[in-house]
Amino acid sequence: MNEHPLDIDYDRYRVPPGGGFRLSSIASDDTQGMDDKDAARATLSALRERLSSLQERLYAEDRQALLLVLQAMDTGGKDSTIRSVMKGVNPQGCRIYGFKKPTPQELARDFLWRVHQRVPPKGHIGIFNRSHYEDVLVVRVHGLVPPELIEKRYDHINAFERLLHDHGTRVVKVYLHISKDYQLERLRRRLERPDKWWKFNPQDLEERKRWDDYMRAYELALNRCSTPEAPWYVVPAEKRWFRNLVVARLLVDTLEAMSPQYPPPSFDPADYPPASLR
Amino acid sequence: MNEHPLDIDYDRYRVPPGGGFRLSSIASDDTQGMDDKDAARATLSALRERLSSLQERLYAEDRQALLLVLQAMDTGGKDSTIRSVMKGVNPQGCRIYGFKKPTPQELARDFLWRVHQRVPPKGHIGIFNRSHYEDVLVVRVHGLVPPELIEKRYDHINAFERLLHDHGTRVVKVYLHISKDYQLERLRRRLERPDKWWKFNPQDLEERKRWDDYMRAYELALNRCSTPEAPWYVVPAEKRWFRNLVVARLLVDTLEAMSPQYPPPSFDPADYPPASLR
Repeated sequence: MNEHPLDIDYDRYRVPPGGGFRLSSIASDDTQGMDDKDAARATLSALRERLSSLQERLYAEDRQALLLVLQAMDTGGKDSTIRSVMKGVNPQGCRIYGFKKPTPQELARDFLWRVHQRVPPKGHIGIFNRSHYEDVLVVRVHGLVPPELIEKRYDHINAFERLLHDHGTRVVKVYLHISKDYQLERLRRRLERPDKWWKFNPQDLEERKRWDDYMRAYELALNRCSTPEAPWYVVPAEKRWFRNLVVARLLVDTLEAMSPQYPPPSFDPADYPPASLR
Repeated sequence: MNEHPLDIDYDRYRVPPGGGFRLSSIASDDTQGMDDKDAARATLSALRERLSSLQERLYAEDRQALLLVLQAMDTGGKDSTIRSVMKGVNPQGCRIYGFKKPTPQELARDFLWRVHQRVPPKGHIGIFNRSHYEDVLVVRVHGLVPPELIEKRYDHINAFERLLHDHGTRVVKVYLHISKDYQLERLRRRLERPDKWWKFNPQDLEERKRWDDYMRAYELALNRCSTPEAPWYVVPAEKRWFRNLVVARLLVDTLEAMSPQYPPPSFDPADYPPASLR
């Protein structure tokens, strides 16, 4: 498209429905041969303006919603992606929710209960920072529920996301793809900076030891739950400027396809000529 | 302060506790003699960066919250203030909630029930776009509940806000002050632009006829509910660049007074020299 000087092809990162996808097929440091960071900055800025204006129309229309599900390994850049891509979008039309370890009240219900409560209302962009996918990722890796139940959860997730889709919520899912070496580099950097210590938890190193188990759990989830209605995208996330471009472009194109429209006025404009107001 | 080239005095807009305040004492088009919009833009930009960094510390600290209550007459600029001041602040640390006409479920409880559910969690900045004050404003003007009950509500509001204050939430309340003539100008402009029709509702004109009743209800609420713990500010809102500066400055200074700190690490950094990570 002419308005975006850097033309990103994100379709190659979409996980095809039906299975057979391998994470190793996508390089976590891919940039599609681009290296012009100035052009990237300008493009991101243009995409953000477009996103901001589409969001206003979505809000005004008040008939559809967009849900972005963000998953990543620790240090994968979820927070930073949200901050970079959503900067300048009216926060009133966005609902960003970070899912943490479930509370006892949440554990007393099925795993979709707490998630369902947080879906974006019509007119809004919702972002899940972690999500119901943790219930087939960390839960699988640590064996927190019986394998037969985890097996059923993929179908429950697909049914749930189809429910959202059928009622006007477009669901897009992004896995921020990094390598184990890249994570090491990021963790080291975190430990070098006292103002980043609050983000570090020694438990992260325990999870890191299970890297391969996590990759297997991700591959399963991506293969089982990438559907035409709610596709998964595996976004190379080591070059942060590239990652931001891909995610921003994906959101803009999704919203453009949703084509939100300003609603017709609730009154007859002919009855209210501006000069008649007192 | 040296870092803010335009030095705004917002203290003169604070409603003193104890009563006797009149809205007419503050000019709705006041700019404190400033007219340099370029300087205003630069100052706002600096304040936003400061706000963004304070918000990160607030989030990291995870012990205090900030609640901004925003009230205004129609066209007073609540949405635009939120968009302008919060631009660039990490949306994940902000909870912005617009209160609409109460639902039957909400009306089945006391007026603070729905509001209490929306208070910001620790580490967050919350913004109420309209609030529990509607229950002593529109409700008073239209006589929706008996006067004796409205009379009691001011005290209930003060007790509720003190509850928040005593548990770590700083409450700041802003009334965006405009004149009846200014509203007329804005409504006319809205009717001239088809892309703004969705914001127009003929009912707004009915409310406009009760302007004086609203001003009386606001004066009562401001006088009864401006407390040392949860002060009201009457911010001149006709010059939008000035309004943004005042609100941004107020938030920055409030957060600076709260002085959020990065928490101590949950581990002994000496146990984790960066180079030891594998």
